[in-house]
Amino acid sequence: MSEYEGTEVQPTDRPGHSSQTVSVHDEFWGRYIRLVQDTVIPYQYEALHDRVAEAEPSYAIANFEIASGRREGKFGGMVFQDSDVAKWLEAAGYSLSIKRDPELERQADEVIDLVGEAQQEDGYLNTYFTIKEPGKRWTNLQDCHELYCAGHFIEAAVAYYEATGKDKLLNIMRRMADHIDSVFGPEEGKLKGYDGHQEIELALVKLYRLTGEEKYLRLSSFFIDQRGQEPNFLRQEWEKRGRITHWTGQTDQLDTAYYQAHLPVREQSVAIGHSVRAVYMYSAMADLARITGDEALRKACEQLWNNMTDKQMYITGGIGSTHHGEAFTFDYDLPNDTVYAETCASIGLIFFAKRMLELTPDARYADVMERALYNNVLGSMAQDGKHYFYVNPLEVWPQACTCNPGKHHVRSERQGWFGCACCPPNVARLLTSLNQYIYTVHSDTLYTNLYIGSEVKTTLGGTEVTISQQSRFTWDGTVILKVDPAEAGEFGIALRIPSWSTSNEIRVNGAAVSAEEALELGYAVIRREWQAGDLIELTLPMEAHRVYAHPNLRADAGKTAIQRGPLVYCLEAVDNSEPLSSVSLSEAAAFTETYDELLLGGAVVLRTDGYRVDGQSWSGGLYSRTKAAVQPVEVTAVPYYLWGNRGSGEMKVWIP
Amino acid sequence: MSEYEGTEVQPTDRPGHSSQTVSVHDEFWGRYIRLVQDTVIPYQYEALHDRVAEAEPSYAIANFEIASGRREGKFGGMVFQDSDVAKWLEAAGYSLSIKRDPELERQADEVIDLVGEAQQEDGYLNTYFTIKEPGKRWTNLQDCHELYCAGHFIEAAVAYYEATGKDKLLNIMRRMADHIDSVFGPEEGKLKGYDGHQEIELALVKLYRLTGEEKYLRLSSFFIDQRGQEPNFLRQEWEKRGRITHWTGQTDQLDTAYYQAHLPVREQSVAIGHSVRAVYMYSAMADLARITGDEALRKACEQLWNNMTDKQMYITGGIGSTHHGEAFTFDYDLPNDTVYAETCASIGLIFFAKRMLELTPDARYADVMERALYNNVLGSMAQDGKHYFYVNPLEVWPQACTCNPGKHHVRSERQGWFGCACCPPNVARLLTSLNQYIYTVHSDTLYTNLYIGSEVKTTLGGTEVTISQQSRFTWDGTVILKVDPAEAGEFGIALRIPSWSTSNEIRVNGAAVSAEEALELGYAVIRREWQAGDLIELTLPMEAHRVYAHPNLRADAGKTAIQRGPLVYCLEAVDNSEPLSSVSLSEAAAFTETYDELLLGGAVVLRTDGYRVDGQSWSGGLYSRTKAAVQPVEVTAVPYYLWGNRGSGEMKVWIP
Repeated sequence: MSEYEGTEVQPTDRPGHSSQTVSVHDEFWGRYIRLVQDTVIPYQYEALHDRVAEAEPSYAIANFEIASGRREGKFGGMVFQDSDVAKWLEAAGYSLSIKRDPELERQADEVIDLVGEAQQEDGYLNTYFTIKEPGKRWTNLQDCHELYCAGHFIEAAVAYYEATGKDKLLNIMRRMADHIDSVFGPEEGKLKGYDGHQEIELALVKLYRLTGEEKYLRLSSFFIDQRGQEPNFLRQEWEKRGRITHWTGQTDQLDTAYYQAHLPVREQSVAIGHSVRAVYMYSAMADLARITGDEALRKACEQLWNNMTDKQMYITGGIGSTHHGEAFTFDYDLPNDTVYAETCASIGLIFFAKRMLELTPDARYADVMERALYNNVLGSMAQDGKHYFYVNPLEVWPQACTCNPGKHHVRSERQGWFGCACCPPNVARLLTSLNQYIYTVHSDTLYTNLYIGSEVKTTLGGTEVTISQQSRFTWDGTVILKVDPAEAGEFGIALRIPSWSTSNEIRVNGAAVSAEEALELGYAVIRREWQAGDLIELTLPMEAHRVYAHPNLRADAGKTAIQRGPLVYCLEAVDNSEPLSSVSLSEAAAFTETYDELLLGGAVVLRTDGYRVDGQSWSGGLYSRTKAAVQPVEVTAVPYYLWGNRGSGEMKVWIP
Repeated sequence: MSEYEGTEVQPTDRPGHSSQTVSVHDEFWGRYIRLVQDTVIPYQYEALHDRVAEAEPSYAIANFEIASGRREGKFGGMVFQDSDVAKWLEAAGYSLSIKRDPELERQADEVIDLVGEAQQEDGYLNTYFTIKEPGKRWTNLQDCHELYCAGHFIEAAVAYYEATGKDKLLNIMRRMADHIDSVFGPEEGKLKGYDGHQEIELALVKLYRLTGEEKYLRLSSFFIDQRGQEPNFLRQEWEKRGRITHWTGQTDQLDTAYYQAHLPVREQSVAIGHSVRAVYMYSAMADLARITGDEALRKACEQLWNNMTDKQMYITGGIGSTHHGEAFTFDYDLPNDTVYAETCASIGLIFFAKRMLELTPDARYADVMERALYNNVLGSMAQDGKHYFYVNPLEVWPQACTCNPGKHHVRSERQGWFGCACCPPNVARLLTSLNQYIYTVHSDTLYTNLYIGSEVKTTLGGTEVTISQQSRFTWDGTVILKVDPAEAGEFGIALRIPSWSTSNEIRVNGAAVSAEEALELGYAVIRREWQAGDLIELTLPMEAHRVYAHPNLRADAGKTAIQRGPLVYCLEAVDNSEPLSSVSLSEAAAFTETYDELLLGGAVVLRTDGYRVDGQSWSGGLYSRTKAAVQPVEVTAVPYYLWGNRGSGEMKVWIP
């Protein structure tokens, strides 16, 4: 008997945020999206139901069955296990918005029914505290992820409503959001806390955007504003529970920076702590800065962005360079082999980039989004959709992963479903919602952030317009946009000129347009009166080239990476030989580019001249006054995202 | 009322082991030995008594005072805290053998009296189990170091007896050894165990060598033979105590390889596990192989030696490349920045090398001894004798030591006395007993292992002989040996030709001798009839040169180290600039060598041509298609052992 049952919900457009409908029609990404739809989502569904023989049980659905009273049992899995169900539902929602699928919708509806049954009378929803510690709600926000799980369910509810028009989950989560609003807030008697793992903040913005309910925006702002204030809530809570951590039941230290709660958010300028928590928070901050026009928040977002992407980001778009706390370390500390660069962190970076693009149409945000998407994130999933990397290294020596404990977190081959299954569902929900990342509308201008074959319907300068993008972008730099306004109209179309490109050619209906003259913050902005059938042709030569790292980035000193278009390349032992450390590139040699259709779904392979230390010629023991001989050799590089799909072997991105 | 009170003990010569008396007279090492005598030993004495204001309390003497009933209180410090007292007594013994010092002898006698009072009626001696867990003796050999502490006291007892002729501590430790013999052994009813930390094994050999008592040799052999046998004692013990570890009181995993108890020792061929435990064990194995003639044991020693020094040793003589378990990892895995290379492990490597030299006069053992001594070990101590490195990195970025948790174990400056004070007393006892490492006698030949100014008195081929060595070896490669037989006699004098030398000149009374013809396992062996006053002059040019690493040693690929004589050199930021990663060497440039007497006691400084990336010329962000410019620059290198004495800054040994 929810107060929202049957409520009519109207999607609302917030100021500066035009509605757009985007569908993806892209050969490269289409294959991955279908993989998610055909394999990942069904596989995850089975995994959530503990029916995947080779995987650890998830317990996620079982927990809801127990919490709803359908069966008896004990809570299983991590304290945040509920979020796996939420992420699956969110991905299912996105998938249904791409393609109707009655069976998937039936499965999702059943899961939603189950979730609804597990909701408590007062709106509270969390199986851990319902089953295991009923009296302990909201007593360990630092560790226990209650608001985090709620946030994921809110995201799922919004996605599922937008895809199907069904509001059952939405109403469940509005009740939960209202319950949270009754517990947290600036009013006397309410908790002045916030979750140890940010997520609710960005979710509440989504709920606000869908429902128009200001209270959700206020609650999100409350959580953001409260974070890091003194007296520090997390510290008080930690003292109150005797400094005991949920994870071991033992006393533990508290590092507020791990939770980005060391300073009020507007005073933060350096990316620090757990990297996924960080980028989820920054995403919400960017949302709120845009919606509320809060300049201090915008400035903090920009400073954090700049620090993170100018000083703490791998060339693959990976962030968080240490596995200790899955965290940022400090400026220019980006070791390639002891790296973390968690998949979820790069996904969160893409969330943040999308929101920065909504805040300011600056192509550097899209450059980073593209970098993370085509390299770190894409590389995390195996070609079968069932194996994943959590950690995305830039240099791997497989034996070190097993025999050197400092690298135990690094794997040389993708693993199956995990006990803590955060990354695979995050990949699924990102890929099925990829349509949300391609374009941004500011005023009368459509900004193309990603060159992915797609169709967008929107309104620009008062004119309804359909724009279709054709791109075989991963391998070829030619993009064609067909502009179809309902009637002739003046508006802008902005083409991102990627940071990796050194030249470009733009033609509108065959006539050359100077990108340089039209350049605004990295976009070539074409403003004119558009007619139905107008064609824009953008050509970005995608020659393979060398990339160097900032001299302060010690791990990459004297080394070069190889990039072609958005793709970073790597060397694998299977194409070269071991040890890869014996291979170096010839300073000025050209690359030959070959499209190899047999290579893991087809890819452009690069070959160039290099050198290799001849191990046979080494005459010393471990150390010697005499160098080994060096031979010329052909070096073969493959796209980073394909690494580790051909057995276990050495890999490296940065080559001497 | 010990059964040994007043017993006359005669030092015994075991077969193949001639007695020799060696005294050190060396400018370079003399300074360090005096530093140990004048500063380190007194400072340690104060530290053991908890009278050093800036250091954590040791509790070591206090524990003995409590155990002896002199005062009341609680046990303090680590379970193996007693061993600090033992190591101090051992160093005091060596120091007294160098120079009588009534005050030090009085202090040592008082400590020995205290130790004696803490001994239990049955001979048992260990303050932790006497004070804290009286009923738990011998129940957690894995963690609790009872035999380890006994071993250190036995070493101290032997050293103190040999220095002073006083047998009180020796008798205390014979009672303890006899008590151990009554508890452990193959006989029914006795424990079939061994200590989690090897040490007792080599100590019992020393006790056997001094006393001639075969039972101590048998007991040492028992511990060595029993180790790694199935059913595995450590595993059974671990199961029996509910898999609880002493360190946390929680359950824990058992990794028998950490304790080198994964296989019977004769089946071990790869250095594995905790590196100090490993080399202490190998030392005892080499002792036993020599004394008992056990071929299988000798073969295992050789295989372990070869694996460790051909595949798992830093160029500085550091071993154990990971701080996780202070352990070996695997072949060729020698990262320079996440390194461990504990000081104690290199000291243990020197112990092992000495015993391998006693087993076989092969100069490669002495080469490694020299490498570890002049680099890893010497570098661990500050010029004031009061600050030490546990971890001896080959590449340091100070900010990473504080901001990257994977490098928290690495320090950029030497630290004061530690809570777990294993390394400083180990340095003290090694330096004060340096005379034991310079020469080995096999049959009628004296082998010179280290070129350290010294005088040795021994008997060769039936002739009593005094040989004095003059060397300013650290900086200059000329060594003069003056041979003074009591009467003319035929015997051999073997000069080590170091692996770093490419040429040498040997003259006997001015006449050239061909080292090549005389070469036996790396020694130039000169056999002739010697007369009083014969002079041998060995000249080893010490030009600075480049050293390269085996191609499988990935961390050093494309890099070069600099060595001059036995000293490895390094670059420090204070002489060059930061980041050091921007500095590279010119391929063929010569080194200029300058003796700088003002540099930390005087040292040869090397300068050469190199290049440096001009950070100012970098125009990109974090990554760019355009390289920064490179400028020629003078590169300055200083001996590795002096690094970190001039403030905190970057340092590296391997340079591109």
